[in-house]
Amino acid sequence: MAAVKVHGPPLSTAVSRVLACLIEKDVPFQLIPVNMAKGQHKSPDYLKIQPFGQVPAFEDEHITLFESRAICRYVAEKYVEQGNKGLFGNNPLTKASIDQWLEAEAQNFNPPSSTLVFQLAFAPMMKLKQDPAIIKQNEEKLSKVLDVYEKRLGESKFLAGDEFTLADLSHLPNCQYLLSWTDRGELITSRKNVERWWGEISSHDSWKKVVEMQNAALPGEA
Amino acid sequence: MAAVKVHGPPLSTAVSRVLACLIEKDVPFQLIPVNMAKGQHKSPDYLKIQPFGQVPAFEDEHITLFESRAICRYVAEKYVEQGNKGLFGNNPLTKASIDQWLEAEAQNFNPPSSTLVFQLAFAPMMKLKQDPAIIKQNEEKLSKVLDVYEKRLGESKFLAGDEFTLADLSHLPNCQYLLSWTDRGELITSRKNVERWWGEISSHDSWKKVVEMQNAALPGEA
Ligand SMILES: N[C@@H](CCC(=O)N[C@@H](CS)C(=O)NCC(=O)O)C(=O)O
Ligand SMILES: N[C@@H](CCC(=O)N[C@@H](CS)C(=O)NCC(=O)O)C(=O)O
Repeated sequence: MAAVKVHGPPLSTAVSRVLACLIEKDVPFQLIPVNMAKGQHKSPDYLKIQPFGQVPAFEDEHITLFESRAICRYVAEKYVEQGNKGLFGNNPLTKASIDQWLEAEAQNFNPPSSTLVFQLAFAPMMKLKQDPAIIKQNEEKLSKVLDVYEKRLGESKFLAGDEFTLADLSHLPNCQYLLSWTDRGELITSRKNVERWWGEISSHDSWKKVVEMQNAALPGEA
Repeated sequence: MAAVKVHGPPLSTAVSRVLACLIEKDVPFQLIPVNMAKGQHKSPDYLKIQPFGQVPAFEDEHITLFESRAICRYVAEKYVEQGNKGLFGNNPLTKASIDQWLEAEAQNFNPPSSTLVFQLAFAPMMKLKQDPAIIKQNEEKLSKVLDVYEKRLGESKFLAGDEFTLADLSHLPNCQYLLSWTDRGELITSRKNVERWWGEISSHDSWKKVVEMQNAALPGEA
């Protein structure tokens, strides 16, 4: 039985970020279902491991952790000698650059992209009303962020330099949904360097496996 | 001349987070003004070091960095042997816990608290209209986050354990403004453990120095 446990559904972007990291690092893990429709993420037992009542939660030997990016950093450091060994860099300067672009993802890319995915894909599925003003505002925000990425990815192959790292990996979940579940995929495909980058990062076997897990978990696919 | 340079005004919460970290780590630095009123943060020269056009930007020997939390992590790791030596933990498990609560600050605490500070303090100063619905929504969000903190701080002295770390430090800028510049300080003072924690973290000499720098920079204080 794997020591590492991930609690949460693979369709959650924060969960799939952690799964991509574990697979990229060749770390075996057990996926523990959390029935969010039944509110299991707000149950007293679950709140003991994720006090904010969100997915994912994570366990490994002597530690439980929450927050997908903190989990990814921990996994990349603890399992540095296996799988993709450069995922979190191999010297302090590269590591600082990875950290900087991982923060850019968390602070600049994630808010507008996850809002767009929610409004354009999840809201209709959940029969919630879309808010056109919010969609417009976040499309503009994301465009500006991707303009910065377009320039950066003209100077280096990946965000933090010439290797695929945690900084790139962290963008996979929301990029994937923007492209497959919304009609705003051209935010990515209309930018030459961003499109080239997306092609490279999404063709990693680790991410393909995550997408398979997501497809298998889609309602009505049983 | 100090090797470390921080670009940006100390009144910015993201800048003051970095200043608190540098002072706590006894790292001498030079503060380089960025005239935001004149749009200097969007000038071509500045965009070379902070492509998103925000403050702070940071320089040290062979590296330039942006994103306040990435800068803090870099400073705490590079200067581990000076100043507060435990600021980013001394073993992988403590470090992971610090990282987790630093992410909780960035993801859960910062969005509602900085929105409240903007709406309640900056908007009136800038003669912008406040949005009561946004204020209410973010007050509710922040309350829920602080309820989690209240419980956590009943179990351990600081967020990541029994020592003051980067995770606590990162909360100083927005807590300070909530208490001194808005009328919603009771979000903090009405919670026994959160209030005790705020008393401890804000009494560090490093933070007192940052507040002095902020007061000296206030318009009309010259
Ligand atoms: N910052 C957290 C975000 C986690 C998150 O937002 N999870 C969502 C699913 S992707 C969730 O649990 N939502 C349910 C809720 O917030 O009640 C992380 O990166 O782990
Ligand atoms: N995630 C960034 C946020 C930086 C940020 O929001 N800076 C604000 C001042 S506190 C700014 O530069 N605002 C001007 C703008 O966004 O145009 C960090 O932590 O460094």
